[in-house]
Parts: sequence; C-alpha cells; structure tokens
Amino acid sequence: MTAAIRPVLAYFMALQDKLCDALETMDGEAAFAREELPGPAGGLARPRVLADGPNIEKAAVQFTHGIGDALPPAATERNPELAGRGFQAASISVIVHPRNPFVPTTHMNLRFFLVDGSGSGVREASSTSGRHPMWYFGGGFDLTPCYGFEEDCVHWHQVARQAAGAHYGTFKSACDEYFHLSHRDECRGIGGLFFDDWTQGGFDSSLALVKAIGDAFLPAYRPIFERRVAMPWSERQRQWQLYRRGRYAEFNLAIDRGTRYGLQSGRRVESVLASLPPKAAWRYGYLPEDGSPEAELMTYVKQPRDWLPAVDNSGD
Amino acid sequence: MTAAIRPVLAYFMALQDKLCDALETMDGEAAFAREELPGPAGGLARPRVLADGPNIEKAAVQFTHGIGDALPPAATERNPELAGRGFQAASISVIVHPRNPFVPTTHMNLRFFLVDGSGSGVREASSTSGRHPMWYFGGGFDLTPCYGFEEDCVHWHQVARQAAGAHYGTFKSACDEYFHLSHRDECRGIGGLFFDDWTQGGFDSSLALVKAIGDAFLPAYRPIFERRVAMPWSERQRQWQLYRRGRYAEFNLAIDRGTRYGLQSGRRVESVLASLPPKAAWRYGYLPEDGSPEAELMTYVKQPRDWLPAVDNSGD
Repeated sequence: MTAAIRPVLAYFMALQDKLCDALETMDGEAAFAREELPGPAGGLARPRVLADGPNIEKAAVQFTHGIGDALPPAATERNPELAGRGFQAASISVIVHPRNPFVPTTHMNLRFFLVDGSGSGVREASSTSGRHPMWYFGGGFDLTPCYGFEEDCVHWHQVARQAAGAHYGTFKSACDEYFHLSHRDECRGIGGLFFDDWTQGGFDSSLALVKAIGDAFLPAYRPIFERRVAMPWSERQRQWQLYRRGRYAEFNLAIDRGTRYGLQSGRRVESVLASLPPKAAWRYGYLPEDGSPEAELMTYVKQPRDWLPAVDNSGD
Repeated sequence: MTAAIRPVLAYFMALQDKLCDALETMDGEAAFAREELPGPAGGLARPRVLADGPNIEKAAVQFTHGIGDALPPAATERNPELAGRGFQAASISVIVHPRNPFVPTTHMNLRFFLVDGSGSGVREASSTSGRHPMWYFGGGFDLTPCYGFEEDCVHWHQVARQAAGAHYGTFKSACDEYFHLSHRDECRGIGGLFFDDWTQGGFDSSLALVKAIGDAFLPAYRPIFERRVAMPWSERQRQWQLYRRGRYAEFNLAIDRGTRYGLQSGRRVESVLASLPPKAAWRYGYLPEDGSPEAELMTYVKQPRDWLPAVDNSGD
C-alpha cells in the first residue's frame, strides 16, 4: 500500500515499448524515432514519434518522468493547496493519427503524480491520509472517428467497460465532459474513459486499475484499426478528415489541460505538441450536406451517447 | 472631444468595404461571402470571408458592433475594475492567408470599447476623467512572412512608422511583445503596430490615429503582395508555408487575447475562428536545413528586429 514511483515507471516504460512495437506492425513500414533525454534531478523523457507511414500518418508514444521543484498552476487548478510543492510526475501519452479517414484517431494518457510535502527533493511518499505527502493517478483513453461506425464505438466502449469495471460509468461520463469543445458545443469524439486525482482503494488497487486500462488500449483500438485500414477512400473523405482534425487542434491548443500544463511547465515543446495532427484544415461556415456520412458523424459527436446496452437492468 | 460610437462605426464599415474591394481585385477571381447578422440590443455583425481564390487562399474581413450586459473576463484582465459592466464594442478584423508562400500572411485589427458606468444600456460616454464611463481604442497590424525579404519588412515598417508617427516605437515594441509564442520563444512574424487601452489626447485625436493606421494597411500590404504574388513556388515552399501556418494556429488558439475574448463571450464561433489558416501542418522535431531560405526566415522571427534605420540620430 506504499505509493512508489518505481513500479509505475516500470509499467509505463514496458507499455511504451509494447505499443511502439504494435503500432509499427500495424503501420507495416515506418519506424518510431526514439530518443532518451535525461531531465533535471534524474528525470527522463523518451519521446517516440512515427511519421509518414503508409497507414499511420503520425503517432506519438511518449514516456516522461519529471522531477520538479514546484507544480505549475495548470496542475493545481483543482488542488490549489498543492501550489508550489515539489513533485515527481510520470506519464505515458499516446496519439495515433491514421492516414485512412475511416480509421479513427485515438489518444491515451496515463499519469502518476507524487507530491512533495516540503517543497523540494521528494522521492517517495506513503499515504494520502494527511494533506501531504500525497499521490494520485489520472488518465484514460478516447476515440475520435471521422466517420461513424456504430460497431466500432460499441467495441471501443465494451473493452473500456471491461477494463474499468465498476468505474466505467463514472469514467465514461468524465471523458464526455473533459473532451468537450465548449465553443462549438461538440464532443471531440465518441469518448471512452477519463479519471483524475485517483487514489481510490489505495496505491496497489489504483495501480492495478491503471494497468488494466493501459493493457486494454490495444484490444480496444487494434480491431477497429484493422477493420478499417484497407477501406478505399477518396479526396472528399480526406478533406473531411483534415477538417475534423481542425477540431482536434482547437481542443488541444485552446482547451486541453495536459497541453496547457506541458507548455506552462516549460516541457519540451515538440513533445507537448506532438499530439497535434500532421495536417489540419479549417473551412469557414462549413456544414456537411444533410443525409451525408459527414453529417451522420456530427450526430455521433453532437452530444454524448450511451454506446452499450444497459447491464443488469432486467429484473427477471 | 465627446467619445461616441457613431463615427467609429462609420469608419470601420467604410474601411471594411474598401478592404474587401481591394482584396477581391488583388485576388482577381474570388468574391467575399457577405452576411449581415443583427445582434442583441441593436448590434450588428458583418462577417465577410473569401475562400479558395487563385491568389488568396482565405481572407476574412469582419465588422462587429456588439452591445452587451457585462464585459467578459478576457476583456477586463488588465482593467479588473471594469468587470461586469455593460459595454459597446466595435471592431474590424482582417486576416489574409495568401496562396503563394512568398506572399506574407497579414492581420489587422481595430477596435473601440465604450464601457458603461451603471451596468447596462450605455449608449455614449463623454470622458475618461472619472473612473466611468470610459472608452478606449486598440488594434494594430502585423505581418507574418514564410520567407524573409528584407525589403518587404522595411517597407511594412516604413508605412507603419508614417501612420503611427511619434508612437511608432511604442506600438512596434508592443506588437513584438504581443505576437510572441512564449512556448517556442519565437515571434509570430516580423511585427508592425499594436496598441491597447488607448485614449491618449482624447477621443478625436485617438480616432484620428486609428484612422491613420487603418488607412495605412493597404499601402503597407498591397505593394508586398503585388511584388511576390507572381513568383513561382514549389511543393517544398508550400510545405514550409503549411508548417509555418501551424505556428499561426498555435498563437491564435493558445495565446491570442482576441480569440479567447471571442470564445468566452459566446461570439459566433465561425467568425472568431475565421482567422485560422485554411490548411496547416505540424512536423515533429522539424528543423530547416542550415543555410536554407527556411532557416533564414527563422532568423527573422527568432527575436524582434529594428527594421528601420534610426531617425534623427545624427547630430549634424
């Protein structure tokens, strides 16, 4: 039950390796550029980006272990009493921008914060019972299709529900709420899981949940990827994909807390913005034609939807 | 010396007409889509966007006259005592994204705020001597080339200096400071003029300065446009343009106060985001080759530069 950074780092780094291998296989040709960048006070970043593959236009799978003197404002927005404390932060961040417009974009993030009680130099902490030291997990995964395939959304959420268990409903709602473009009153995609400030059940139980979610990412995404990747697509569908990616850029640059935290904390800008689409487009006042597949996608993202039949709802 | 919205509206609307006509001529083919959208309490928006022309990939020239109950937070960041007051706001906003990578992107904004003393329903105000009612002007113009042509930058700043007169130095520095991507430690472009909360010399004198700047936009931009628009360009130059436009999107979505104000105040999102480039690209870890024209452009934007020879510096 002792919160410790070591098993978290080990899991995140192993998951990074596994996901990079899988994505290289799924692309079939391109390889991740891999770097190891030592950070201050013994931290480490392993940014890995794959670009211009035949199937994957851009993927970033990044591991970071940061050790810092003082939490930046964006990280303490919802926990103001933590402002200024020293910390360790570990995260793995995944984004896949496929080339084929029928293959959805996906994103996963898992992160662990360990906050110092004294202001600097923390290494490990042992409970959440006092106000400090403390720790928490956050993360989740979500899917952003350009075209609506109901079976993909159902599969995605089935795997998500399996991974999150009893927390699925809460995490699903939190995901819908977080990935929301308030200025457009649109969802970024069709959701998935999102959790933050997570300590429930203690460290071991929380880490087990995080591992279950991390391990579920490939089973959730890969079947969808493989089902769609060979579908022929046209210039019209490419243009729609670029237009939808504009929304992705809007969310990441104007709204996303992780991006703001990354930019505020002076993290390597190319790593923070590796999530941005390789290409994006904006078209003034554009509305897809009524009854078109593009208009149908908008019904998928206009408001959150329950993708799974209710469970345990029948009385007999 | 009485501050009044009427002459401001008249100037902004006439300027909008003039600029739309000129840009249509400069493009040679495409026309602005023109709308008139009545706003609450007698306000009016005239969004105008030209798209997909042979020479201009996208241009937005927008006039807005808004009448509101309460200033939004982004508008009162630097004047917190104004929070919650009723207001009238008039603005003209111009953005040109040319197709040819050798023609720079440009932006102009002129705006007028008239703040109510009582909380709602203000029509006109007469002085800045008390804390309320009050008014101020803001705005400026700036240039964002993808390739560095020193003569273009010198011309741009010569016209800017002529328009701003004694205020050129102050406005030029403010422009460099405002259009700065802190997360990249880069300027958005090569600057121009920027001013805000402007009341100096009273209303008539301020309006005259605003008019001088608005009238200078075409003499500043058009000769550069015409000098570059027929230059042949290649796919490499197009890709660089898209990449540089990524920086533009980063600035507008993550940093720009005007965009944040627009999104916060619930303004029509297509108008607020009409400044975004029609297409943009991001390339992870990209650095232009040493000695290339792309690398040279980076020396133009890495830090602010004085583009004009010093004036009145010789003692004899």
